[in-house]
Amino acid sequence: MATLILLRHGESAWNRENRFTGWTDIDLTPQGIKEAHRAAELLGGGGYTFSVAYTSVLKRAIRTLWIVMDDLDLMYVPVHRSWRLNEKSYGALQGLNKQETAGKYGAEQVHLWRRAYDVRPPPLAWDDPRHPRFDSRYADLDPESLPATESLHDTLKRVLPCWENCIKRDLAAGKPVLVAAHGNSLRALVKHLDGVPDDEIAALNIPTGYPLVYELGGDLTAVRRYYLGDPEEVAAAARGVARQAGPG
Amino acid sequence: MATLILLRHGESAWNRENRFTGWTDIDLTPQGIKEAHRAAELLGGGGYTFSVAYTSVLKRAIRTLWIVMDDLDLMYVPVHRSWRLNEKSYGALQGLNKQETAGKYGAEQVHLWRRAYDVRPPPLAWDDPRHPRFDSRYADLDPESLPATESLHDTLKRVLPCWENCIKRDLAAGKPVLVAAHGNSLRALVKHLDGVPDDEIAALNIPTGYPLVYELGGDLTAVRRYYLGDPEEVAAAARGVARQAGPG
Repeated sequence: MATLILLRHGESAWNRENRFTGWTDIDLTPQGIKEAHRAAELLGGGGYTFSVAYTSVLKRAIRTLWIVMDDLDLMYVPVHRSWRLNEKSYGALQGLNKQETAGKYGAEQVHLWRRAYDVRPPPLAWDDPRHPRFDSRYADLDPESLPATESLHDTLKRVLPCWENCIKRDLAAGKPVLVAAHGNSLRALVKHLDGVPDDEIAALNIPTGYPLVYELGGDLTAVRRYYLGDPEEVAAAARGVARQAGPG
Repeated sequence: MATLILLRHGESAWNRENRFTGWTDIDLTPQGIKEAHRAAELLGGGGYTFSVAYTSVLKRAIRTLWIVMDDLDLMYVPVHRSWRLNEKSYGALQGLNKQETAGKYGAEQVHLWRRAYDVRPPPLAWDDPRHPRFDSRYADLDPESLPATESLHDTLKRVLPCWENCIKRDLAAGKPVLVAAHGNSLRALVKHLDGVPDDEIAALNIPTGYPLVYELGGDLTAVRRYYLGDPEEVAAAARGVARQAGPG
């Protein structure tokens, strides 16, 4: 039996300002920091631990992980940072206010960009300074392979190699794994783990700051899954995500 | 030309209490945290950066690294934690007060245990709960290979594979590397890089919290080495290390 813990980072400055974030490297707010401490408390209180951690190359996820590692006295645990666990790219929408964007393009269009499985927001132009090819953290990657925008389907395709080649290997070796990441990279992973159909994934909401524990069988398929924390609070947090701006 | 930056962590709680620390996982004091911020300021002010980082599995070094990464907006940089960069093991002395130990064994003996190249402090017994084989962070290592005590020579022997097989590979690929570690693991590395003779290494003191920059030639041997920071302050800090308790 292997244990996989998924943790979505809490509130970032652009969550609070209701702006599309995507690959923009925005930090946590004090509220987001509080959510990370709560996640650590839930893990520690339940006797959960991990011996390997995965995260994205975005600081809101990394700081969430650091807080959990610090609070659980696990700072020595090896951490793998991967661009494959980054939030879904929101392309040219990144930085825009979600409400204003809905005013301009219509709420239905924005909903599709945000939640539909196969719809991509407008792409970043190749010369847009926000294009990831200008960011030194991706210097080792082929610029052509960096997304200018992504659907959730695109996100899943780039998350999967990290799952198949890295995370599964650690789980198979008996190591409990924590993944600290983002609303959509985690939705992609959950879609894969739970076999969620394409047309049902829009309704799946992962609350921030509540660890989602998977118990996996010998073949690393999910046997059991549950959130840590008060079930009513977790459900309310998921409804909150669904209702407001949501991931992005 | 490759750039290697060595950074010794600042004051820990046991530094302040004048106790032998070694492999004991003691955290930084507020003063140690301040020293890490100063190191970041010196690096940032001088335009230094790094694209890979190495550290030990001890939180005083990891926290120093985290502070530097955070202050320099480099949280995304890959970090390799290795037990090979841990402080020298002080064996059965770990936890003891240095002054009291000198009272019991004589100042000369304590000086030899602390600074001589080939002298080992008394070892931890195999069943001593302080033996690293009981610490889950070393669970993947052969218990027989874990040190019960170390001379600086022993420390150098286990640091070298990390230098030869990992750090050099990154430097050869053109990546500037930061190593955030400990008084003795860094003295061992400096001994190797600078070819310091065995009988001169006792006199080499690395101040805490001042980045030591190596410019390395094509064959990765040192072309130039210098500390960042006011030279008088750096020299005073090195003298302070020599005078007081020093590494351990």
